[in-house]
Amino acid sequence: MYICKGRDFCLKEIKKAEIVFQPLGRRFIMYAGESLYLAAKAANVESLCGGKGLCGKCRIIIKEGEHLLSSFSTAEKKFLSKEEINEGYRLACQTIIENAGKIIVEVPFESRVGKQRLAVSGMEAKVEFNPNIKKYFLEVPPPTLSDFKPDFERIIEGLKVKHNLNIKHISYYALKNLPIILRNSGFKITLTVKAEKEIVDVEEGNKEKELYGFAVDIGTTKVAGYLMDLNRNKVVATASMMNPQIPYGEDVISRISYASKNPLNLEVLHKTIVDGINQLIKEACEKAGINPKLIYELVIVGNTAMHHIFFNINPKFLALSPYIPTLKKSLYVKSKDLNINIHSEAEVYSLPLIAGFVGADAVADILATEIYKLKDKTLLIDIGTNTEIILSDGLNLICCSAASGPAFEGAHITHGMRAATGAIEKIWINPEDLNPIYKTVDDEKPRGICGSGIIDAIAEMFKAKIIDFNGRIKTEVNHSRIRKNNKITEYVIAWKEETAINKDIVITQKDVFEVQLAKAAIYSGISILMKKLNVKINELSKVFIAGAFGFYLNPESAKIIGMIPDIPLNKIVFAGNTAGSGARMALTSKKVREEAEKLVDKISYIELATDPSFEHEFISALQLPHKNINLFPTVKKILNL
Amino acid sequence: MYICKGRDFCLKEIKKAEIVFQPLGRRFIMYAGESLYLAAKAANVESLCGGKGLCGKCRIIIKEGEHLLSSFSTAEKKFLSKEEINEGYRLACQTIIENAGKIIVEVPFESRVGKQRLAVSGMEAKVEFNPNIKKYFLEVPPPTLSDFKPDFERIIEGLKVKHNLNIKHISYYALKNLPIILRNSGFKITLTVKAEKEIVDVEEGNKEKELYGFAVDIGTTKVAGYLMDLNRNKVVATASMMNPQIPYGEDVISRISYASKNPLNLEVLHKTIVDGINQLIKEACEKAGINPKLIYELVIVGNTAMHHIFFNINPKFLALSPYIPTLKKSLYVKSKDLNINIHSEAEVYSLPLIAGFVGADAVADILATEIYKLKDKTLLIDIGTNTEIILSDGLNLICCSAASGPAFEGAHITHGMRAATGAIEKIWINPEDLNPIYKTVDDEKPRGICGSGIIDAIAEMFKAKIIDFNGRIKTEVNHSRIRKNNKITEYVIAWKEETAINKDIVITQKDVFEVQLAKAAIYSGISILMKKLNVKINELSKVFIAGAFGFYLNPESAKIIGMIPDIPLNKIVFAGNTAGSGARMALTSKKVREEAEKLVDKISYIELATDPSFEHEFISALQLPHKNINLFPTVKKILNL
Repeated sequence: MYICKGRDFCLKEIKKAEIVFQPLGRRFIMYAGESLYLAAKAANVESLCGGKGLCGKCRIIIKEGEHLLSSFSTAEKKFLSKEEINEGYRLACQTIIENAGKIIVEVPFESRVGKQRLAVSGMEAKVEFNPNIKKYFLEVPPPTLSDFKPDFERIIEGLKVKHNLNIKHISYYALKNLPIILRNSGFKITLTVKAEKEIVDVEEGNKEKELYGFAVDIGTTKVAGYLMDLNRNKVVATASMMNPQIPYGEDVISRISYASKNPLNLEVLHKTIVDGINQLIKEACEKAGINPKLIYELVIVGNTAMHHIFFNINPKFLALSPYIPTLKKSLYVKSKDLNINIHSEAEVYSLPLIAGFVGADAVADILATEIYKLKDKTLLIDIGTNTEIILSDGLNLICCSAASGPAFEGAHITHGMRAATGAIEKIWINPEDLNPIYKTVDDEKPRGICGSGIIDAIAEMFKAKIIDFNGRIKTEVNHSRIRKNNKITEYVIAWKEETAINKDIVITQKDVFEVQLAKAAIYSGISILMKKLNVKINELSKVFIAGAFGFYLNPESAKIIGMIPDIPLNKIVFAGNTAGSGARMALTSKKVREEAEKLVDKISYIELATDPSFEHEFISALQLPHKNINLFPTVKKILNL
Repeated sequence: MYICKGRDFCLKEIKKAEIVFQPLGRRFIMYAGESLYLAAKAANVESLCGGKGLCGKCRIIIKEGEHLLSSFSTAEKKFLSKEEINEGYRLACQTIIENAGKIIVEVPFESRVGKQRLAVSGMEAKVEFNPNIKKYFLEVPPPTLSDFKPDFERIIEGLKVKHNLNIKHISYYALKNLPIILRNSGFKITLTVKAEKEIVDVEEGNKEKELYGFAVDIGTTKVAGYLMDLNRNKVVATASMMNPQIPYGEDVISRISYASKNPLNLEVLHKTIVDGINQLIKEACEKAGINPKLIYELVIVGNTAMHHIFFNINPKFLALSPYIPTLKKSLYVKSKDLNINIHSEAEVYSLPLIAGFVGADAVADILATEIYKLKDKTLLIDIGTNTEIILSDGLNLICCSAASGPAFEGAHITHGMRAATGAIEKIWINPEDLNPIYKTVDDEKPRGICGSGIIDAIAEMFKAKIIDFNGRIKTEVNHSRIRKNNKITEYVIAWKEETAINKDIVITQKDVFEVQLAKAAIYSGISILMKKLNVKINELSKVFIAGAFGFYLNPESAKIIGMIPDIPLNKIVFAGNTAGSGARMALTSKKVREEAEKLVDKISYIELATDPSFEHEFISALQLPHKNINLFPTVKKILNL
């Protein structure tokens, strides 16, 4: 086929292929040179890395037309077994159309995107409802030859008289519209006012009810957005997605490293998250049936690297000693300077930061749990790819950040997956026969293991003595579930026949080590903070576990592997996604913004990487539950030590 | 010639002509369909109307190739005499190339743009030097593991310690640059600070000296720009131009009318003045050898219509009763929102306005002359296409605007021209023989008459009784200089042989009436204000005459024709271009901006158009010098009445 219809500027024949996705029967027309990735996405094929050949999740089976496609890539050879290759398996993102014809593709069950578990809501402190943006309906008398006040001075007087406001400024945008809108509306207008200081928009008639805000929690792995009605102080729709920057690095350090290489890379990462947030805004607004132009403010929280990259600020120095952020103060930036598709005069507000690795998300956690107001000794842990830890002794607040990595999000774990339909989320291993019982999300056939299931698995394997104190899977135990596969020891959680993916779901030795690294990072952070403020484990009156992941965590398992201190379960509070809560609080209350500012001036930051005791603490915490078993009396008892 | 080189999308043959301008010999290649206007402009041919066939000034003589050109237009038939048409005269803007070939054009002397008289400087009040924008060099200690303050908080502390500044904000632009610039410069930077509140730029090293501002006076007819060194409080270069909006209307009302027709027209007028100002900035910066990006603030003054159009605010309602401006408050708008080519973070500041027809230029006049501080009864007149009149009785300030029209700028006057080389600027008529003596700018052969010459001419003709009280040229006086030409009576100021344009320079009956309309508008405004505050002519302790034109005005002549009250010459102060002075004062002193704000709240505006006594005053003032000759005792005496 010639696109140019025979005219001479089109020299190349464009080859067109028809792709049919089974079992849904969706059809696409694609051209030679394109990969099957976008079509596969449209046909609901899973991908974590965004089509970069990094995650190996976009598995498809070519049923017909394999001769029209590119040969196997290095990535495919890495992620697909010989049997799978023989069965026609490919990675959609690596499969390039080379010739015209018909291609039939089957989407295997394990590649279908399941319904993801809803973002959990978070604990939220009750705060004064007083958003930064408000609308006021105003009717002013039209000017006459004896009352010839200019338009701006006229509405300022009206706002004073009718709403007791002392406004002095108007945005250039609103000013330009003012004369026409005043007269078109018969001098009945709605004014959008920012911070009780500046008029930012003028509309005809009474539009007071059309006032929305959007709060976003930019996680390293997940991004969650909340559309709020700023009149009713109510979430009207939510939307969430995997952080679209994942293909450029799964953790904070690799993203900083990518962004620091050259200004273009920073621009790419910045644009990627902006596009992602625009997508969330669009989705939430569609759900609620609201025009995104009615969003007058966006509040974002995120760790410092996510914050800097979102604002297009070079994050390079966050990763270089002495790990200095560009600022910690809260920030207002015009939405149009960031290309956020909301009201053209809207601003983006970010809560302040604490340090290079403790960001606005941690500030949000503190605001939502109000630990800064508690007089008791309290610990707050927000578990994520980066885990923020905050300790209060009732007087002082200190914090640190632990590089726990993405293991709990399912990454770097052989059968790791998100907490979506079919994910094994709870595991119990019978210490007698070493056979597991598990529960999956939505009680569907298992497809993989999500974060809470992984921690359960390690804890249960440890309790059942399948793994030792060093995390080694005991090959000496003679059991059909404990075996070697390609020289790597593994324990079978679910047999092929039970699963939806037609293969055994296992925990490998590598998976156990990944979890040990992650939990050791967290525990050593907690340990160092407690030593700094001289707080003993039994003195803690409460431990808040924040973050969506923490919400599903089995705290007993977390204690057994030594991820959190050994405290009674009734002292543990699952705070949920408090980063999101804090963002919403800041969106609806100016007072929260003021408190946040004071808070970050008060809190001290401890840099773990340079703390002299860190290495020792970390190595001690690598063991299960800890080198010093006396710190974990509950575990000691369970193991009969 | 075919532009497409034979490809089929270009169906039309493009005809190319070569144009040679004599006597300079400049050559141009032009295409069929184009007029000779742009080439003529490049060859220094005069034009006031911008190529619209309105002013008849772009006269050229076709020496060769007349058969290649369009036939005579209506405008040409209006502006060119039969003799001239026979001699090959054309208007460049009306002459369209129709065929390929060679065209030789002579530029007659009267069409050559003369060197314009420099913009006069204005009276300027001494004010506290304290510009809104300042630069501070700062060296801060680099962060360490024990001093890990973020970059922004670090420089804020530095500014506090070293410069005693309490800065709380930083522009997004500066923030983005901060981390890299700090480290590239070894933590030695220059901060540009706005209003002692916000950091707007960060540069490496010490750039304190590179700090400039630009002040612009946007007159209806003329635009003047002043490039100022904001360290030395010194004008380093000036540039001026005719207002490039003139083709869209010579006076304020016709421009408002054009801009109000549709949003596109407003955009065109807005863009035209912005382009003009960018041109002035470029010129002034080239003269001074300065990069325009070192201009950190632009201050503009202009009448209300010029102000609104410059800011792209619809001026429609200025011309409709009750003549309401959109605002009177001073205004700050980002230069990038207006596409002004200076520093990207610079702002454009406008002094406040007073009313629909008394703008920021009048505020500038008041600031520069300081009449708001004087305890005496004082009058201020800024003569222009719109004349602003301000009266103080020592306690109250009132003002009005008189629609005097562009006659004093040389427009609508048969031999009117700008005050450029060869313009007759002073005239004396011997009452005995009725022959004139004149002086031209630069003492060159006369080419026309400029504003001051026109007023002199009318005053002298009146004194010599060539014209009567009603302005009628007395045809009954038998003199070779008084004659009829095409039924219109005229008085010859200079005979063909004396002039540089090879034709008689005359004052026609129409010219006299134009001046009467203009002076009556001004005098009736003065008269109404004085009645409002009950100030008598002999009580005036001073009359400031502002405006570049006013500077060259013979005040005796102005009194004789009844344009200004009959007061002793020693009470008249020629203040010069005080609009420009006020703009410069606002650029260099924040205090001036504060005073301006207070001033506009204090001053009362009188709308002449709706004043019940206006019609009577205007008709009385149409006579020479006035219907009530007793108001002009000096004139009475001169005329021996």
